[in-house]
Amino acid sequence: MDLKPTKPLSGFIELLPAQQRCFDFCAARMLNVLKKSGFNLLDLPAIERAEVLTDKDNWDEIETQMFLFQKGDTKMGLRYDGTVGLSRYVAGHLNDLVFPFRASQFSKRYRGERAQRGRYREFYQMDMDIMGVNSLSINYDAEIISVIQRTLNSVSEFIGENAVRIGSRPFWDALFDYLEMTDEQKKNIFVLIDKKDAMGDDEFAQGLTDFLADANKENQIKSVFADGYAGFVGKSDKLDSAIAELNDFMQTLELFGVKNAQIDLSIARGLAYYTGLVFEFKLLNYPELGTAAGGGRYADLAGKFSKTKIIGVGAAIGFSRIFVALMESGAIDLTPFESPVDVAVLCMGTENMGYAVSVLNALRDAEVATVAYLDADKKFKNQIEYADKIKAKYSAIIGEEEAKNNTIALKDMMSGEQRNVAVADVLKIVKGM
Amino acid sequence: MDLKPTKPLSGFIELLPAQQRCFDFCAARMLNVLKKSGFNLLDLPAIERAEVLTDKDNWDEIETQMFLFQKGDTKMGLRYDGTVGLSRYVAGHLNDLVFPFRASQFSKRYRGERAQRGRYREFYQMDMDIMGVNSLSINYDAEIISVIQRTLNSVSEFIGENAVRIGSRPFWDALFDYLEMTDEQKKNIFVLIDKKDAMGDDEFAQGLTDFLADANKENQIKSVFADGYAGFVGKSDKLDSAIAELNDFMQTLELFGVKNAQIDLSIARGLAYYTGLVFEFKLLNYPELGTAAGGGRYADLAGKFSKTKIIGVGAAIGFSRIFVALMESGAIDLTPFESPVDVAVLCMGTENMGYAVSVLNALRDAEVATVAYLDADKKFKNQIEYADKIKAKYSAIIGEEEAKNNTIALKDMMSGEQRNVAVADVLKIVKGM
Repeated sequence: MDLKPTKPLSGFIELLPAQQRCFDFCAARMLNVLKKSGFNLLDLPAIERAEVLTDKDNWDEIETQMFLFQKGDTKMGLRYDGTVGLSRYVAGHLNDLVFPFRASQFSKRYRGERAQRGRYREFYQMDMDIMGVNSLSINYDAEIISVIQRTLNSVSEFIGENAVRIGSRPFWDALFDYLEMTDEQKKNIFVLIDKKDAMGDDEFAQGLTDFLADANKENQIKSVFADGYAGFVGKSDKLDSAIAELNDFMQTLELFGVKNAQIDLSIARGLAYYTGLVFEFKLLNYPELGTAAGGGRYADLAGKFSKTKIIGVGAAIGFSRIFVALMESGAIDLTPFESPVDVAVLCMGTENMGYAVSVLNALRDAEVATVAYLDADKKFKNQIEYADKIKAKYSAIIGEEEAKNNTIALKDMMSGEQRNVAVADVLKIVKGM
Repeated sequence: MDLKPTKPLSGFIELLPAQQRCFDFCAARMLNVLKKSGFNLLDLPAIERAEVLTDKDNWDEIETQMFLFQKGDTKMGLRYDGTVGLSRYVAGHLNDLVFPFRASQFSKRYRGERAQRGRYREFYQMDMDIMGVNSLSINYDAEIISVIQRTLNSVSEFIGENAVRIGSRPFWDALFDYLEMTDEQKKNIFVLIDKKDAMGDDEFAQGLTDFLADANKENQIKSVFADGYAGFVGKSDKLDSAIAELNDFMQTLELFGVKNAQIDLSIARGLAYYTGLVFEFKLLNYPELGTAAGGGRYADLAGKFSKTKIIGVGAAIGFSRIFVALMESGAIDLTPFESPVDVAVLCMGTENMGYAVSVLNALRDAEVATVAYLDADKKFKNQIEYADKIKAKYSAIIGEEEAKNNTIALKDMMSGEQRNVAVADVLKIVKGM
């Protein structure tokens, strides 16, 4: 019989135990920041109706991008982000939730496309959103950025420092109006701006020419990337108002204690639902990872689900993208995560198993992380090798002597030092580590 | 435009924030027991190749039971349990893992069938497995049962006490041999035994007659359900050995301090891979929930993936089944989970926002669970209503006076009592709660 493949499907992440402990440790630290910041952790279904996942009716195209399936008459698929489920949930629970409602999600998302390096088909993102009914102060945009920075800083020993750049959808809207562009041009140019980083300067310039065919307008747009908003102060009320909003916002970020923040109008965030300020975080030590977190303000989150207007600001941290990459590249030292247990109880001879199990129980009752090697027929050599391989901090060796005297031969696996102690002493020694 | 549906698909669970906090709290407590018992928490892909999910080639039938899809030439689907991925993972990492290897998983699983009451299409199970290469002492079967009981007991204030019943595959094998049944009969009768609870006594008796057509044999099988193994002691070596194993095992369970354990040979566990002892847990206060956890020993976990023989014992706790049912029935009191925050910072007047944010930052720096109402234009009435609705324990009210004097009007939301204090005092008051 042919053996089945043991590798996961391409684009799916599978970690070894120490990597997984590191991954879980960082997630727990970060989720604790969100919890202490009053965010309600939601765990929404991974499967949604196709009509919830998309407005398009071009199924062939969507099917290559998503995991879709049909049950009876119902088309459904795996979510590709956290926002689509959140908008459905919030619209469905308007009377159950208190607004401004703070939601966070830490969950797997799915992309059906062919896997590429660093692009997974199953991955974790950590989302946070603050949503208001009909209105929401821009101070919450600043708070979200502050909370993301606190969240990333809570694991700074693994990922280093971060910086955030702030862009503005209203600035581009105002500039497009000022340049008297057509709706078609506005749409095409915005896509171009969003893709600029990926295409390079020449292709970008060519795109501007293709869509605008006006050297003056082209140069004014290019000037934003070179000089920011400098050339547009006083050009129109709408431009001035967008620029003032940005400058005020930078002061609010300072109030919140946000570090390494700067305006960068090239930050566009492709997603259609953003309508206000947008932002992207990078890790200063790992620029090659690209955007570590990003988000922005949306004026109407749940319009497709409810007549109630939900205004919000939200962001997602690319959790798998950051931590899987840094673990695989060796940038994160996994040594602290290699040892899951404090004590390995080793039992020499089946006749001592009763006493060995009583020691195991006593240590577990005291919440000492303990495993036991329960095959008492195995030689001492095999058992101590096991304790060594799992990187237990101590071995509690149980033989005839120990069972008779109610003691334990406690071996420090680091130093090799061994001494005879009572169970109660083990607790003191291990807890005092 | 028609609004899209806001309800999740049928069979998918969606919790409100307080329910989710309870769910997460219980999961964290239970996972902590597993962690302290030396289990390596794994997080495997939710999607596997179809050939990994099943050996069958009857796709039509499987497609109604699972969520399957095709990408290019590859058929794949969502896992229905944790074992299928675990066996692939262990076979693929034989040299990376230390044996006996302890794995736990807490993850979503998927069943594609039409949803029924209490049967979800997306649900969490919590698995634990101990696996050895070529051999594994039966003491680990006892340990797994002990660890499940510790895990369930860690949340006993929510789910009450539990009991475990132990069955034996070897006993039935020995009995079938003793009754000189054909292979076909063995197979059919075992399915019948596994389904006995669901079908009732008459249908069960009829089934025995259909397959055996031998009143003596039928009666002997029925006697197991009435009197256990009593009538079969001394009938064959194989029967005696199976009975001795069971009795020895009950003594080992006692060593481990397992409570409420009893032999029940009607426990069959339908799954094909079990080969040794099997067991099922019930919650004593909630028998209507059926099996809360179940598992058993398998002689060859990964035979389809590797020539190395992996022997193990494993179990799954029906986490969603237990906790969603008990929350929905009101059996679990959610009051302790309704208040996610200690302090709500309320700011009266935009001119005091700078001070209010500095208070928010100071409290968050000190890891006090804090939110702020950041729309300082809103009336006091709206803001205090918000603090009341989110069930904040305290409101930190910031007005002109407070900003000037560097103080906080701290209102105890339970008693209504209000006093002027410094930020440092808030820490003392809240942390001393």
